[in-house]
Amino acid sequence: MLIAISDSADPRIEAYRAVRERDLVGREHRFVAEGEVVLRVLARQSRFIIESLLLAENRVESLSDLFESLPADVPVYTANRTVMDSIVGFPIHRGILAVARRAPQPPVAELLARLPERALVVGLVGLANHDNVGGIFRNAAAFGADAVLLDPETCDPLYRKAIRVSVGGALVVPFTRTASASTMLRALEEAQFDVIALSPSGKETLAELERSPRAALLLGAEGPGLPADLLARTRTVSIPMSGSFDSLNVATTSGIALHHLAGGGRAPLFAR
Amino acid sequence: MLIAISDSADPRIEAYRAVRERDLVGREHRFVAEGEVVLRVLARQSRFIIESLLLAENRVESLSDLFESLPADVPVYTANRTVMDSIVGFPIHRGILAVARRAPQPPVAELLARLPERALVVGLVGLANHDNVGGIFRNAAAFGADAVLLDPETCDPLYRKAIRVSVGGALVVPFTRTASASTMLRALEEAQFDVIALSPSGKETLAELERSPRAALLLGAEGPGLPADLLARTRTVSIPMSGSFDSLNVATTSGIALHHLAGGGRAPLFAR
Repeated sequence: MLIAISDSADPRIEAYRAVRERDLVGREHRFVAEGEVVLRVLARQSRFIIESLLLAENRVESLSDLFESLPADVPVYTANRTVMDSIVGFPIHRGILAVARRAPQPPVAELLARLPERALVVGLVGLANHDNVGGIFRNAAAFGADAVLLDPETCDPLYRKAIRVSVGGALVVPFTRTASASTMLRALEEAQFDVIALSPSGKETLAELERSPRAALLLGAEGPGLPADLLARTRTVSIPMSGSFDSLNVATTSGIALHHLAGGGRAPLFAR
Repeated sequence: MLIAISDSADPRIEAYRAVRERDLVGREHRFVAEGEVVLRVLARQSRFIIESLLLAENRVESLSDLFESLPADVPVYTANRTVMDSIVGFPIHRGILAVARRAPQPPVAELLARLPERALVVGLVGLANHDNVGGIFRNAAAFGADAVLLDPETCDPLYRKAIRVSVGGALVVPFTRTASASTMLRALEEAQFDVIALSPSGKETLAELERSPRAALLLGAEGPGLPADLLARTRTVSIPMSGSFDSLNVATTSGIALHHLAGGGRAPLFAR
């Protein structure tokens, strides 16, 4: 259902107004996705319902296959660049936005109970940076992780920028939030997960780690790392580095660890 | 030598004026480094000469150990935040800038000839994104790579943002530019490097790759990847991913591959 918008004050596109500020305050039951690649990933996920699209006029043709696959009552608003930028509050270079409904977040025990006998889960503790959370979801999707758990301090994976950095991975891998890092750990233990905490002071070396069928990888923020009480209760693993320069980005770290835990293509996780 | 600057038009801090625009046009024999961590890395590298510092007044005390170690004739300019932001042209949250002289870039054959019998080199082809190049240098430093080679399309590792993202890694790992990707490949072959080209269509799997004493890892941009003629002349290697989501960031990819090639802490590259 194509609807041309010529006035940036049009009430029908209320959900797109001042996107950047709304990102920051959270948007209840909705989120905003941006760009063609992300939109195509979103359209394939059954747990999110697309409420509407807002497209720059020159993007309509290249996306027609996609919005023709949407239910007929989903409005596809179109506007010229000037009107679109004025609605959103800054230049939307990609010219493609979608508003979708969030999926309900299941209790952690329920999410873990659903997973197969062999499963790989990522747990994030205190990760407040959207680039890092987006990057971790991209890696989680690429290496077939089954779920991501978030502690209360970790930022929202459905923040627009996090989705963009994840190239849609934040829409692919199921996630839920736990009441605390401790709750997360307890739920993983109860579901028989072998919990691996990455830390520069880890006792084992990643490359030598043999994984269990149910493996969970815990990651903390660069700098503070994972809390000491959590490290005391888990299997700690380090990634050895060149002595003089001991610094890895946490998203990169997740990629290295997930590549190893997923078996680098040798494990049955990957049908080859 | 502490020098208080109260006027943003003061000619002595010319090198700091409108940093962002100057980043883009290149700055001949100089570069700008930003932030405490990067500045401390810079001060340890003998191949770069620090010409001056510009510090927010409230940062002077915490850095006094550092600028006392500099030669006595290196000016340390200080300014309040308003003057500093006005000199630079945007808010410098970190309150710490340095201007340093670039090191000469040796011819590629000379750089490679200097390396030890067992060596790890990274070759970048068409990487125009400063975040990615910065991220790759961070990983190259973390995993002890001996050198990075750049083709003409790859961006400047000493661009302010690339240095920042590299957390100083761009100042640690020696690099040089080659006349073309072909020249790079030929130089590596002549120096007896086993050249490994990462590609989604690679014939070998990274996790199964046995490295030679002299190994070079070639990376291309996300999307286009490495040119076909280069792939045809090298050993191609892939990182298997979950079939439904085949997307890794190139800096993350470099981290995964360098972790493997460096032996994950088991190889003699790391004195443990």
